[in-house]
Amino acid sequence: MGEKVGFVTMGEVKGERGEIPKIGVGMLGYAFMGKAHTNAYKKYPYIFWPPAAIPRLVAICGRNEKAVEEARIRYGYEKAYRDWQEMLNDPKVQIFDNSGPNSLHCEPSVAALNMGKHVFCEKPLAGTVEEARAMWEAAQKSSAKSMVCFNYRFLPALRLARDFIAEGKLGEIYHFRAQYLQEWIMDPNFPMVWRLDKDVAGSGALGDLGSHIIDLARFLVGDIATVSALTRTFIKERPSLEDPTRKVPVTVDDAFVAVVEFSCGAIGTLEASRFCAGRKNHQVIEINGSRGSIRFNLERLNELEVHLVGEEPKVFQGFHQVMVTESYHPFYEHWWPHGHIIGWEHTFIHAISHFLDAVVNNKEIAPYGATFEDGYRCAVICDTIVRSSLSGKKEELRY
Amino acid sequence: MGEKVGFVTMGEVKGERGEIPKIGVGMLGYAFMGKAHTNAYKKYPYIFWPPAAIPRLVAICGRNEKAVEEARIRYGYEKAYRDWQEMLNDPKVQIFDNSGPNSLHCEPSVAALNMGKHVFCEKPLAGTVEEARAMWEAAQKSSAKSMVCFNYRFLPALRLARDFIAEGKLGEIYHFRAQYLQEWIMDPNFPMVWRLDKDVAGSGALGDLGSHIIDLARFLVGDIATVSALTRTFIKERPSLEDPTRKVPVTVDDAFVAVVEFSCGAIGTLEASRFCAGRKNHQVIEINGSRGSIRFNLERLNELEVHLVGEEPKVFQGFHQVMVTESYHPFYEHWWPHGHIIGWEHTFIHAISHFLDAVVNNKEIAPYGATFEDGYRCAVICDTIVRSSLSGKKEELRY
Amino acid sequence: MGEKVGFVTMGEVKGERGEIPKIGVGMLGYAFMGKAHTNAYKKYPYIFWPPAAIPRLVAICGRNEKAVEEARIRYGYEKAYRDWQEMLNDPKVQIFDNSGPNSLHCEPSVAALNMGKHVFCEKPLAGTVEEARAMWEAAQKSSAKSMVCFNYRFLPALRLARDFIAEGKLGEIYHFRAQYLQEWIMDPNFPMVWRLDKDVAGSGALGDLGSHIIDLARFLVGDIATVSALTRTFIKERPSLEDPTRKVPVTVDDAFVAVVEFSCGAIGTLEASRFCAGRKNHQVIEINGSRGSIRFNLERLNELEVHLVGEEPKVFQGFHQVMVTESYHPFYEHWWPHGHIIGWEHTFIHAISHFLDAVVNNKEIAPYGATFEDGYRCAVICDTIVRSSLSGKKEELRY
Amino acid sequence: MGEKVGFVTMGEVKGERGEIPKIGVGMLGYAFMGKAHTNAYKKYPYIFWPPAAIPRLVAICGRNEKAVEEARIRYGYEKAYRDWQEMLNDPKVQIFDNSGPNSLHCEPSVAALNMGKHVFCEKPLAGTVEEARAMWEAAQKSSAKSMVCFNYRFLPALRLARDFIAEGKLGEIYHFRAQYLQEWIMDPNFPMVWRLDKDVAGSGALGDLGSHIIDLARFLVGDIATVSALTRTFIKERPSLEDPTRKVPVTVDDAFVAVVEFSCGAIGTLEASRFCAGRKNHQVIEINGSRGSIRFNLERLNELEVHLVGEEPKVFQGFHQVMVTESYHPFYEHWWPHGHIIGWEHTFIHAISHFLDAVVNNKEIAPYGATFEDGYRCAVICDTIVRSSLSGKKEELRY
Repeated sequence: MGEKVGFVTMGEVKGERGEIPKIGVGMLGYAFMGKAHTNAYKKYPYIFWPPAAIPRLVAICGRNEKAVEEARIRYGYEKAYRDWQEMLNDPKVQIFDNSGPNSLHCEPSVAALNMGKHVFCEKPLAGTVEEARAMWEAAQKSSAKSMVCFNYRFLPALRLARDFIAEGKLGEIYHFRAQYLQEWIMDPNFPMVWRLDKDVAGSGALGDLGSHIIDLARFLVGDIATVSALTRTFIKERPSLEDPTRKVPVTVDDAFVAVVEFSCGAIGTLEASRFCAGRKNHQVIEINGSRGSIRFNLERLNELEVHLVGEEPKVFQGFHQVMVTESYHPFYEHWWPHGHIIGWEHTFIHAISHFLDAVVNNKEIAPYGATFEDGYRCAVICDTIVRSSLSGKKEELRY
Repeated sequence: MGEKVGFVTMGEVKGERGEIPKIGVGMLGYAFMGKAHTNAYKKYPYIFWPPAAIPRLVAICGRNEKAVEEARIRYGYEKAYRDWQEMLNDPKVQIFDNSGPNSLHCEPSVAALNMGKHVFCEKPLAGTVEEARAMWEAAQKSSAKSMVCFNYRFLPALRLARDFIAEGKLGEIYHFRAQYLQEWIMDPNFPMVWRLDKDVAGSGALGDLGSHIIDLARFLVGDIATVSALTRTFIKERPSLEDPTRKVPVTVDDAFVAVVEFSCGAIGTLEASRFCAGRKNHQVIEINGSRGSIRFNLERLNELEVHLVGEEPKVFQGFHQVMVTESYHPFYEHWWPHGHIIGWEHTFIHAISHFLDAVVNNKEIAPYGATFEDGYRCAVICDTIVRSSLSGKKEELRY
Repeated sequence: MGEKVGFVTMGEVKGERGEIPKIGVGMLGYAFMGKAHTNAYKKYPYIFWPPAAIPRLVAICGRNEKAVEEARIRYGYEKAYRDWQEMLNDPKVQIFDNSGPNSLHCEPSVAALNMGKHVFCEKPLAGTVEEARAMWEAAQKSSAKSMVCFNYRFLPALRLARDFIAEGKLGEIYHFRAQYLQEWIMDPNFPMVWRLDKDVAGSGALGDLGSHIIDLARFLVGDIATVSALTRTFIKERPSLEDPTRKVPVTVDDAFVAVVEFSCGAIGTLEASRFCAGRKNHQVIEINGSRGSIRFNLERLNELEVHLVGEEPKVFQGFHQVMVTESYHPFYEHWWPHGHIIGWEHTFIHAISHFLDAVVNNKEIAPYGATFEDGYRCAVICDTIVRSSLSGKKEELRY
Repeated sequence: MGEKVGFVTMGEVKGERGEIPKIGVGMLGYAFMGKAHTNAYKKYPYIFWPPAAIPRLVAICGRNEKAVEEARIRYGYEKAYRDWQEMLNDPKVQIFDNSGPNSLHCEPSVAALNMGKHVFCEKPLAGTVEEARAMWEAAQKSSAKSMVCFNYRFLPALRLARDFIAEGKLGEIYHFRAQYLQEWIMDPNFPMVWRLDKDVAGSGALGDLGSHIIDLARFLVGDIATVSALTRTFIKERPSLEDPTRKVPVTVDDAFVAVVEFSCGAIGTLEASRFCAGRKNHQVIEINGSRGSIRFNLERLNELEVHLVGEEPKVFQGFHQVMVTESYHPFYEHWWPHGHIIGWEHTFIHAISHFLDAVVNNKEIAPYGATFEDGYRCAVICDTIVRSSLSGKKEELRY
């Protein structure tokens, strides 16, 4: 990692705990993800005590001068920048957090990596496969750490599920099925925002929601070998943001469905949509193996349903509602007594804890964190889904 | 319908109710489905009071002499036959109920239809598309009624769902997704039974479970235009029934997954498997439309989750757990007070009530009951799923 | 048991199964419970095959001549009576099934027992404690069998729960809590029916719903030692059935709540109400012991939630959703494959199977069936709940 | 409120937002509640933006010198004190946050109020009724604000429930039932900690868990008029903390059950226990009124089940699973997009937001926040529950 820009002395506890380094963070973006990431940097050091490092909020960067200054004050960043290149030049910035729009993921992240700065990048890794590959290549060349914020890997319930699978508790995996369903753009009068513009967002439900479940599929079951898919745009024109009386074409998908083959032999279904009335943030995953099954629902993220074959059947058949909030569960020792549940935002704190530990102690991001290679492979899968939808064929993955 | 073979006089209530005809039933099969159908014939007349007709259990037919005689006594059939042709020749048999194995669906049913006898045939309609087409053609030529027992059409919750959709309550349909998951042959030592033999069963999870959700897809959302699918056989060899020390090849699918396009423009996912540990009879269906969504789970078959867009949101957003047990709900006026739930077997009673009403009062089987055309179309879709799995392409339906 | 009035010969299977006796049933009542009991007599012999006996529907009795004659035809009873005494005098009536109103439970049942006829009586045993005691005493003196139809004892899930507790799987019991919540008389314009008249019904929610959960408390955990209770009548006047413009006073409770001490040392809460908006037939029971817990919900009666202490915690903590539909589960071998659920009506078939087995094979009704002593003790507890509500004191049970 | 000890200038946004005052916090306690409250002070200002005030973490106080110093460093408090009196004398302490043990609630809080310092006190208000009354009286005399941290009032779902009830959406309330079930001291070898010592904790499950549901009963339905209750200590002796080979008597309750009458005429059941195997933090509340019902479960705290009478029944009967995460739901505009759920800790942030707004803008704590009078009344109800358990009588509340 970079030089220490400061540290906390522990006073009388110093002998036991040693010094805790501070590490400077430069944040690109102040909207939804800027808020979620900043919250994580602020909470991590007093929750994961003693922390691997104490994030120092060096700078925040955004295009709107007034908004970025307000964000600076609100979150306690020391400086505000309007140009990300300038921010990267700030020597106190050791970690570059890229919470900007997808089309701004590649260039600044590559620049940061080339400067030897660690990069924590919001998902999806990039707007296009080409950009994702460039980022992965930059990461390979750089001495710095890089991680994509596929935050759902850091849900205690899904980490537990991964551990189960890795330990063979579910046996050979036969089935993976995941749906990520939302409803927020069903109204045909909802305007043409940047997320519906292919040039800025890259894709629609596929990149936004689909990338999450594709990454989780790879995280939990392994890589994907083939896809057969359909994409759909249900509302083909929407009111322009600038002039609501004018309709402009929607250039991304509203939904996709796919059947996939995994390298391990399992088969799966993947589906994401923003057109599922009544579904707010409904990400549901089920995995069936020769020795057991698990099921997860993001809206009840503290719970994991588990079934294991071969227990005394009169008692144990059926699924167990495991509340993943015990001190021996992943990440939970840092939180509250069991049953005192955590929320969605906590995934980012867990992700940051993993990233900072890797940065400070020179550990690997993989396999628990998503590397830029993971981000690239996810982008390739998204791309192949689009290709299959166009070709009407089962397409093999080529990384 | 055929001549009346008898009737019940209503005594003093005759003036109000009139005479209730008796109608003779000849049953092929005495196992799982023979039991379920017979139970329906026995319960229908005193539950759906006054009934359209009173089934007279004329004869039951099966190959094992001892077993069929015991079934005759057990269920109260008047005669036992070992040859279905003989049974069909019995003039008191007006309805031929085909609860035999799939490979025995075609020939006896066609024979019965050609004799002008009504046919109530267990699903899937036949073991092959060719047989299904022959049955449909026989049905078209016959003056008698014919119906495939896709019994889940007669779940009160799914009939309610269909009515909602037909009335436009869900608006334009965007998504259909259905899974039918079981676990009963996961053990590799489970032997090679007839259901795993392509020559007898036609197919595996696809024809047994998949045909149900395919029929429901058509019942609820309309016909399917294309399929892209994978099938899998996870356990490729099993112990022979005759000689368990010898392994014989499994010739049917253990599971399939598919993405489909509907003629109406909706997209869908279909999946059936017998390899989902912990899943007993887990048929789950979700439909999302522009104005609302529904979700159904066969293991909680008295309930329907409903979400409608546009109600006062602070109260009504989210799904409603509708218990479909009110007297104004489909079929429920004949049963018990609300919340006093019915079970799986009751679907057959509802199906028989529909069939007998059609027979006695010369009504149409469609659209609520599945016609032999419906059964044929379902068979074609199953066949196309297999073809797509082999071709690696999106295949169009050709009926 | 009484003389055989006929039997079925098993033909060739006779050597294996022997003869199955017929046993004559005389039914009092043709409404809700008459239908539920009759359905049980009709289904039992072909479902519980080979049956202990085949019920012969000898006679049905009711005051309304036309209605009872229609019921006779509908259900297939051989004769209709308008006077229960006459029906009891019919020598072919061996079992007297009392499905009449509560105020008609005592006299005919005692008469039947005194004649040596077996009595199967709908719950609650009687309208008053005095009548219940008289019935218990008659039962003790009679050579015939007697059973109260507390049908929920025959839910597979609750029989399983009882077995768990009896085997010590839950350890020492600490807590019992039960609610039985309905909504059907919430409308103040709902008229003054017999169930709201203390002279006919004895009590309101207490006797109708409360008696069920009191019996289940005793069945599952053991006898109750003290009660502290409140009863309430929320709607104190209702329109007269005869003249809806006139209001008449409601003379029974709409709801009760109680805290109880069990003889075994556990404490409990009991609650029943007909004023719980949205609750159809919501009977929920939870039991917590030193080694585990169970939870049951009548509206999902095929399921039992089970938690056992001390299993490997990372996997097994939390409740298991046990679907009580395996062939090794209580009663289920007679039904369908697992996950093909049964309904509310099936409890009566299980209860009848127990009763007929006791009658034919001279077995004990206790402990699985409710004896008239159980019915009497339940009546005493109901009475003590009323007394405690009036006295404002914790009252001890005195049987 | 006290003098401003500093403020944040908003730079260019100053004209719109004005200055935001800083307000000094002195914290007593650094364990479970110290962590939860401190987290709230730290998160509030950047989440509730612009905040009413920015908490300045002036000082933290505790008896263990090393532990309090580590907590100071961990959370960023400016000073550490070992004597609460000294901390109160610090003029920069404007708010006294009492997160100490129950036996230390009264004296320091009264002292702070007498000095004109605002007091935010963890629940229950005090270890005894006498102390609670003294605190209430001190609050009445003081010019400063005082609030008990009954944090569950600040659950979005329960605030929504209260609003529904206040608006009459549920009509006249008939029933309230609440259970708060945990399992954490079921092991008889769990030692004799301070929470099991009446002298320190005041009571057991009653004060710890029961006080929450009693406060919620009052918050949602209104005051309680009578109680009939039982308390129980299941494990009467436990290993001493100092010498585990020695057993010492447990002096608090392990559980209580009660039936209550509300002043408004409703009846209710209340129950809390630490002996419910499998229950982690299972607080479940159901309320039934003449026009609707609600149900809430703390382990799924983002959800509220709602049923309203009189909607179009074929669609809307049954409970709605309302996810209380919309921007128009209480507190949620400050958080994340809908379906991105919050956790248990967020209740404290909402509570602090209410308290700081009252302090800075001189608003009332009531009715949404719990006043010291609310805390006192809750203590009286707990006391009356104990009295009823001893007397075996229904006891009236006397405040």
